Amino acid sequence: MSLQSRLAEVENVRGANEQQIAEHGRLLMMRDEREAGRLIEVPPDGFVRFVDVMGNDAAIVQAARVSYGKGTKTPSDDRSLIRYLVRHRHTTPLEMCEVKLHVRVGMDTWRQWIRHRTASVNEYSTRYSEAIDSMQTAETWRLQSSNNKQGSGSGELEWPGGYRVEPRNDDRGGYVVLDGDDVPRMITYDPEFTPTKYLSAAEANVQAYARKTYQERLNFGIAREQARKDLPLSTYTEAYWKIDLHNLLHFLELRMDKHAQLEIRTYANAIAELIKPLFPVTWEAFEDYRLNSITLSYAEQHEIRKALHPNWTVCMKPLSSRERTELEEKMEWLGIAPLLFPSNEELAS
Amino acid sequence: MSLQSRLAEVENVRGANEQQIAEHGRLLMMRDEREAGRLIEVPPDGFVRFVDVMGNDAAIVQAARVSYGKGTKTPSDDRSLIRYLVRHRHTTPLEMCEVKLHVRVGMDTWRQWIRHRTASVNEYSTRYSEAIDSMQTAETWRLQSSNNKQGSGSGELEWPGGYRVEPRNDDRGGYVVLDGDDVPRMITYDPEFTPTKYLSAAEANVQAYARKTYQERLNFGIAREQARKDLPLSTYTEAYWKIDLHNLLHFLELRMDKHAQLEIRTYANAIAELIKPLFPVTWEAFEDYRLNSITLSYAEQHEIRKALHPNWTVCMKPLSSRERTELEEKMEWLGIAPLLFPSNEELAS
Amino acid sequence: MSLQSRLAEVENVRGANEQQIAEHGRLLMMRDEREAGRLIEVPPDGFVRFVDVMGNDAAIVQAARVSYGKGTKTPSDDRSLIRYLVRHRHTTPLEMCEVKLHVRVGMDTWRQWIRHRTASVNEYSTRYSEAIDSMQTAETWRLQSSNNKQGSGSGELEWPGGYRVEPRNDDRGGYVVLDGDDVPRMITYDPEFTPTKYLSAAEANVQAYARKTYQERLNFGIAREQARKDLPLSTYTEAYWKIDLHNLLHFLELRMDKHAQLEIRTYANAIAELIKPLFPVTWEAFEDYRLNSITLSYAEQHEIRKALHPNWTVCMKPLSSRERTELEEKMEWLGIAPLLFPSNEELAS
Amino acid sequence: MSLQSRLAEVENVRGANEQQIAEHGRLLMMRDEREAGRLIEVPPDGFVRFVDVMGNDAAIVQAARVSYGKGTKTPSDDRSLIRYLVRHRHTTPLEMCEVKLHVRVGMDTWRQWIRHRTASVNEYSTRYSEAIDSMQTAETWRLQSSNNKQGSGSGELEWPGGYRVEPRNDDRGGYVVLDGDDVPRMITYDPEFTPTKYLSAAEANVQAYARKTYQERLNFGIAREQARKDLPLSTYTEAYWKIDLHNLLHFLELRMDKHAQLEIRTYANAIAELIKPLFPVTWEAFEDYRLNSITLSYAEQHEIRKALHPNWTVCMKPLSSRERTELEEKMEWLGIAPLLFPSNEELAS
Repeated sequence: MSLQSRLAEVENVRGANEQQIAEHGRLLMMRDEREAGRLIEVPPDGFVRFVDVMGNDAAIVQAARVSYGKGTKTPSDDRSLIRYLVRHRHTTPLEMCEVKLHVRVGMDTWRQWIRHRTASVNEYSTRYSEAIDSMQTAETWRLQSSNNKQGSGSGELEWPGGYRVEPRNDDRGGYVVLDGDDVPRMITYDPEFTPTKYLSAAEANVQAYARKTYQERLNFGIAREQARKDLPLSTYTEAYWKIDLHNLLHFLELRMDKHAQLEIRTYANAIAELIKPLFPVTWEAFEDYRLNSITLSYAEQHEIRKALHPNWTVCMKPLSSRERTELEEKMEWLGIAPLLFPSNEELAS
Repeated sequence: MSLQSRLAEVENVRGANEQQIAEHGRLLMMRDEREAGRLIEVPPDGFVRFVDVMGNDAAIVQAARVSYGKGTKTPSDDRSLIRYLVRHRHTTPLEMCEVKLHVRVGMDTWRQWIRHRTASVNEYSTRYSEAIDSMQTAETWRLQSSNNKQGSGSGELEWPGGYRVEPRNDDRGGYVVLDGDDVPRMITYDPEFTPTKYLSAAEANVQAYARKTYQERLNFGIAREQARKDLPLSTYTEAYWKIDLHNLLHFLELRMDKHAQLEIRTYANAIAELIKPLFPVTWEAFEDYRLNSITLSYAEQHEIRKALHPNWTVCMKPLSSRERTELEEKMEWLGIAPLLFPSNEELAS
Repeated sequence: MSLQSRLAEVENVRGANEQQIAEHGRLLMMRDEREAGRLIEVPPDGFVRFVDVMGNDAAIVQAARVSYGKGTKTPSDDRSLIRYLVRHRHTTPLEMCEVKLHVRVGMDTWRQWIRHRTASVNEYSTRYSEAIDSMQTAETWRLQSSNNKQGSGSGELEWPGGYRVEPRNDDRGGYVVLDGDDVPRMITYDPEFTPTKYLSAAEANVQAYARKTYQERLNFGIAREQARKDLPLSTYTEAYWKIDLHNLLHFLELRMDKHAQLEIRTYANAIAELIKPLFPVTWEAFEDYRLNSITLSYAEQHEIRKALHPNWTVCMKPLSSRERTELEEKMEWLGIAPLLFPSNEELAS
Repeated sequence: MSLQSRLAEVENVRGANEQQIAEHGRLLMMRDEREAGRLIEVPPDGFVRFVDVMGNDAAIVQAARVSYGKGTKTPSDDRSLIRYLVRHRHTTPLEMCEVKLHVRVGMDTWRQWIRHRTASVNEYSTRYSEAIDSMQTAETWRLQSSNNKQGSGSGELEWPGGYRVEPRNDDRGGYVVLDGDDVPRMITYDPEFTPTKYLSAAEANVQAYARKTYQERLNFGIAREQARKDLPLSTYTEAYWKIDLHNLLHFLELRMDKHAQLEIRTYANAIAELIKPLFPVTWEAFEDYRLNSITLSYAEQHEIRKALHPNWTVCMKPLSSRERTELEEKMEWLGIAPLLFPSNEELAS
């Protein structure tokens, strides 16, 4: 649910209790921060909030210059210096800046996030407090990629084999979703019931069921540290996350990549929005030399040489088929043609 | 389920498919390793398996001695040297040893585990593969501690207000569990149905429901990376975990502590069992100087001086009530008496 | 040389060149910072300068509270919370603060400093620039400790065997220092020439000789990266050093310790002066629970029990003689008497 | 001095004392290790010695496969998997291997080495023991690079302005080196005395002088921790150095680079020799995808497109002149021609 709608909801409350008033205050503060550009919502119920920063572009230059001492003239201005540092991966001056964020994110995504070991973290404790009563829901349902074992693909979501929606043959009306074994899975009164709607309704059911079980355990007096164990991975958590700029850019390079999972990519993009204005020169260099750079392996270099100068004798290692596809994309982009690659089989003959 | 029972189950399979045969081979290998003492089961379905080690007590000594060079006589034998290193927290020689483990653990516990940032980790990917079809279940249900916000306490588990078990008043027999609002929550045919049994049955329900939803999503062709998001935190994961001995002992000091959550403490104890015989001298020193040591704060030292010599004039900072309790335990253990502490109020008067 | 005297020297310069004027500006800036308490001189020519900070006591509390969520009442005020965190080594909230310093320090001391791997560093590059023309000189000369292989001891500095000061038997007057082989080592006109003066004069000689050799290599056009290789370890370097508060306190705990080498201890104390006012509550807790705490090993605990209650049967591991000495100091301080320790030999009999 | 000559020297010793015999044993052990390929000498007196390893190519595969679980078929063999990991910088499986080395290296080079913070280190302590009596000497003297502030260049070493070698005009014969101020700097009897010989003789002098001062301080009973402070940076130290394979390859990528200082590059190359046979498949992939890869920035990609298809309209950021030079080298290597770059000025017009 968006901050806007959560705010609306709280406004409507009459006779709010103390906790609701506190939550209200918290939401109002967040609304102000969003308007000031210091908080970016990540739907359905997450956010990235800027908390603090140490340093800026000038601080990077300042630290880099200590290396050069007072005894040498400075041939390059600050912008060139920063670009030089980023281009040559002289990363220590970038470590002189630090960013602190407050994030709200589903535990599933957080499990990926936390694998970056170079940050400092304080996470909401579900040992100490009741788990946050909000879970990440799917905006859309994505099909498994057919050629990437660990990614999502494109295509139309369809009812799987045997699943169908039929009118209920009794007076209550509506429709029933039956699976391939004719087992009824869901009742609906929506005449346009789609697989997407079905999955989202099923998601709501499993999340509600899990939360209800959690609350009942607490009602039995079960320790929070144990009661939480069957909460869904989609349950939101919150954390303070502090990281230096070098490691943050490395995080963003990996997580803004098109192969990163959509959910964490959305957070990475939100962080990028917050960071850009804090370090404009460094950010631009990061885009030019890191985000948008391409790398050519030794074999790829030889393939390009061969494509441009067929008579050159070069020692080519055969590329794997995946590498070949990647190279073709690079060569097409660079305008190196004709792309008449022999196949591995032809190479072997 | 224990390895033994899982093995038994696989043995019974007739006409096993390829995957089951592979799983069978894996289980047999694990059984052998358990018998050889290289694998310790952590019920219900977890384990810690020793994979590899670099170094031993002698390697610690070897690295420490490089610091002392050839030009000085060695006054102490190896055992004394190791004890000296551990006592004085000269930890770099301990970093010269490395341990690699293979663990199977519920994601809930893994979330705590992974917060130790000094280890190398390769975790089972539920983006790449279908999630492991096994979830951590509670052996017993623990009540929330009354005086420790983040711990479990003792006490008898009881039906909460209004919950009750009543015979069903129809011909199907059995009993129904009703909650405080008279809503039926569960049917049972067990005349001795207890709160514990109720919670475990509810746990089985929520886990089965979540798994079924997961499988159905896969059946719809949903990407694994998205389908997994509502799996319970109790779902098992596996990982290779590699860490140097210094950081491993730090992990164990924190996670074998009585304040650590029972679930991760059980894993820490299992790791300790695997590690002890690999580094017997270091382990003994770790127990003497770290695990079983006590620390006295500056204020505690003054309290002890005062208790032993009431006439001494010492500048005492008032202890918090929690600190006072901790000090009383230490003094009772050390045999420092009489323990006639003035309260903070008396101190102030 | 003190900042004051270096300033005086620069003031006197007539017809200063561009570089001298830049240096002058730098010195004036440093003088202002010293007066504002943001720079502490470390004689003879070093300093620690505060550059930037992220966070304060309140930021620690803010991060810690995210763990406790909104759903629980806060039983403790901020001060208690910080003390609780420090006492129980819940160190992650302390990582939320960061300190950036600019230091000038001899390379010999820097070699120890840099072993702390958790900081970010930008050091003056003697590949890129001419080495700083200043070397750390001894304020006093310290004798080797007789009982600590790696420390300094007390005692009077004396001429070693055969060394003596004799009048020169020619018309030039003055005195000659002869060594045990009657080889003349130094001429002096100081009738009160002491071993201390001799060592300091020899220090000046070796430093001047090394610098002259360095300058001559540069004069030959030798690459700075190679020319520097015979500079003394005492040569000053400068660096930006950034570290989070948790790791900084760990650094200070080790380097403010009486066993740390005097030179780095002086820097640690200077850093402590700069840090205290930035984190007053945390610093106080650090002193109470870390700097001034004492630890009792398992064996020490048993020794204390035995000393207080001789009839108690306890299983005592024999202490090493060094441990025995340490325990006697602790027991004397705590007022636990009588201290009638049996020796290891008596224990064995 | 080479191990061979040091061995010869020790062999010649008659009436060797205990320490010399120990040193002899140490040298013999090292000779055996060199012959077994486990020790590589780095002249004049350094070495890299293999101590221990955890893991191999198969261990990398083993750890990577835990991510892929049992439920998916393995389309790629081990070699392809390793190449895939290295190509896509999936570095965590490489962290599952660990290498431990024993190195002997000048402190000047060690100062660069130790900046890699991800290794475990135990270094020879000159607080505890007398400093190693050996210093790194120059094989050749390198001129300062004219276009790289932090590197060495090529060119002939010449006497600087005013320096000259003249016959001594007295009966002792030989020659005197005079500097530009006619001050005599050195006596020689070598009629072919060159600047190189002069610098090496001066190096021997300053090293001997510094060592003598150090020994005299020890003779005065000065604490080792203080006496060492004016030893040259060229003084050898020894250390155990342990690092995981991912971080080791990163170290090698930086330190085998042609811009790394020759001294540390020599060590990096020696380490590479030791490592290759331990991880042959990973090493090959490292060479193909890391060591010999080239990177094209976003602007470089556009320049290439433009060069190949002059009519394409592309948005070009002007390259700095250094970037332009780098790009020309890449395009020449790849065979992309004609290389008719407009200058920045032409672009602006």
